[in-house]
Amino acid sequence: MALSTCQLADALIRLGVRSGGYLADINRFSGKRVSGPAYTVQFVSADDTDAPKLSNHFVDTAPPGHIIVIDAPPHTRNAVWGGLMTAGAQARGALGVVISGRCRDLDEHRAAEFPVFARGHSIVGQSPFTRPSAINVSLLIRDPGEQVTFPPTQVAPGDWIVADGDGVVCVPKELKTQVEELAIKLGQIDERCMEDIQAGKGVQASFLKHRGK
Amino acid sequence: MALSTCQLADALIRLGVRSGGYLADINRFSGKRVSGPAYTVQFVSADDTDAPKLSNHFVDTAPPGHIIVIDAPPHTRNAVWGGLMTAGAQARGALGVVISGRCRDLDEHRAAEFPVFARGHSIVGQSPFTRPSAINVSLLIRDPGEQVTFPPTQVAPGDWIVADGDGVVCVPKELKTQVEELAIKLGQIDERCMEDIQAGKGVQASFLKHRGK
Amino acid sequence: MALSTCQLADALIRLGVRSGGYLADINRFSGKRVSGPAYTVQFVSADDTDAPKLSNHFVDTAPPGHIIVIDAPPHTRNAVWGGLMTAGAQARGALGVVISGRCRDLDEHRAAEFPVFARGHSIVGQSPFTRPSAINVSLLIRDPGEQVTFPPTQVAPGDWIVADGDGVVCVPKELKTQVEELAIKLGQIDERCMEDIQAGKGVQASFLKHRGK
Repeated sequence: MALSTCQLADALIRLGVRSGGYLADINRFSGKRVSGPAYTVQFVSADDTDAPKLSNHFVDTAPPGHIIVIDAPPHTRNAVWGGLMTAGAQARGALGVVISGRCRDLDEHRAAEFPVFARGHSIVGQSPFTRPSAINVSLLIRDPGEQVTFPPTQVAPGDWIVADGDGVVCVPKELKTQVEELAIKLGQIDERCMEDIQAGKGVQASFLKHRGK
Repeated sequence: MALSTCQLADALIRLGVRSGGYLADINRFSGKRVSGPAYTVQFVSADDTDAPKLSNHFVDTAPPGHIIVIDAPPHTRNAVWGGLMTAGAQARGALGVVISGRCRDLDEHRAAEFPVFARGHSIVGQSPFTRPSAINVSLLIRDPGEQVTFPPTQVAPGDWIVADGDGVVCVPKELKTQVEELAIKLGQIDERCMEDIQAGKGVQASFLKHRGK
Repeated sequence: MALSTCQLADALIRLGVRSGGYLADINRFSGKRVSGPAYTVQFVSADDTDAPKLSNHFVDTAPPGHIIVIDAPPHTRNAVWGGLMTAGAQARGALGVVISGRCRDLDEHRAAEFPVFARGHSIVGQSPFTRPSAINVSLLIRDPGEQVTFPPTQVAPGDWIVADGDGVVCVPKELKTQVEELAIKLGQIDERCMEDIQAGKGVQASFLKHRGK
């Protein structure tokens, strides 16, 4: 199964998830489409001395077959992921990383063909700006843009992450089967619409015939 | 004639159009340079129940040989254009689409070699966030950035749109001939400047000789 | 020596430069990695009639072997650099240009293989929006984003600029030797970390062994 992020968002919206599971404006910097369960990491501002500290490096505790999802404080300009992290993640068997924040060492991620999705890139590393504070916690991924009313998306440990060239989606683990089934069904309907639309039968008539409206 | 968007903007500014016709920060996601008359579509927020409704799908009423220009509400994170729209637009003989808003299904537009220019991309579709409300109306394209004092650009139905790797320009239809003639003339002057500058004669001296200042 | 911008930023932060010398969000539009001393140009808003005027075009006074660094007023949407400027800069033997502002004529810079780094691109040129006002002055490069607390970076004439795919760094000229030496040393430590991390020895253990923490 290789459902696209767009198809999964469509299914989630049909099932009442307001944001469609969209982690807005986290885009691909390296690697191909990736999907797998989330291993979550919360970063905090380095001057937040009250927040918990980790006893291990968060990459060393990433479970094989998972996607590392990092939430960094908004509006930071430093990277929270670099070439050594990609090497460590690959050694652990992690599948990719999705960062609400920035990455650096772009050439290294590309050479390693490791999927890195982020809000942007930087040249400065995490210290002394931010630090990891907690793993395996629920993250609330907010779009840091001004005047944005798009709903934030929660990522809980084990939620199903899919990331491709269009963006990143989080499917709550309790909805995974239901979302997959519906996305396949909607995808099949869209394929029939596509055939008719390409044959010149019109968008409205094709939608009415296959989607029923 | 293959005038660049930059050359057309130069001519428009000389003719007193403050914005140079620039639709700021609408950039290429697929396809090559495209030019043609505008077919306009106004989107509104889905909760704006007072705004008019369309009786046909806006793609089905796109005239052949036109560029579809869409104005979506600012700060939305959803796409208003996807793969099925590109298929419908191509079936109608539309030349491309320019979106003050977002698109999705990037791979499909690229595979179709259909010119899609937009502010960004997304994974979520238009419903339930926005909806098309009117066609063949004048659009006022505003850059949604904060603290921006750059003047907005109006796009009236039939205005001449050109979009390339540098951006998108709108030439008011009543100025088209005048703008083309002036852009060709300015382009020829720039070619002479280029020859002298490449020959090491200096920017200031070359401008003085060929531009007169 | 081909130190990356990331390695140089690491060294600068170790030496107490808060911003790591990072010129945030000025990214590559053409050309390869470039490094050299800064030749600085301050642009002002065109309606600032009190600011000084230049008697020569700023490209004609660019010293060979230098990188032109331009600071344009924030939030402007017009380009301050185009194809004729690249031709003039190459004729002068300048190595590249770094712009806190926008560029245009992207295809021309790419065809010329001239390194152009900027905040974005545009189709409109500088007139009547901005104008160059001073050369060989210190620039204070601020990230124009909202709610950004990342410290600005000063670029003085003769400071050492390095720009690559990750971004742009400014090394104060009085720190150049010290930064280079430290960056080489940190780079060697990172190479040893990389070997151990790739061999599966863990990020934390590898950092402890080679970085000492």
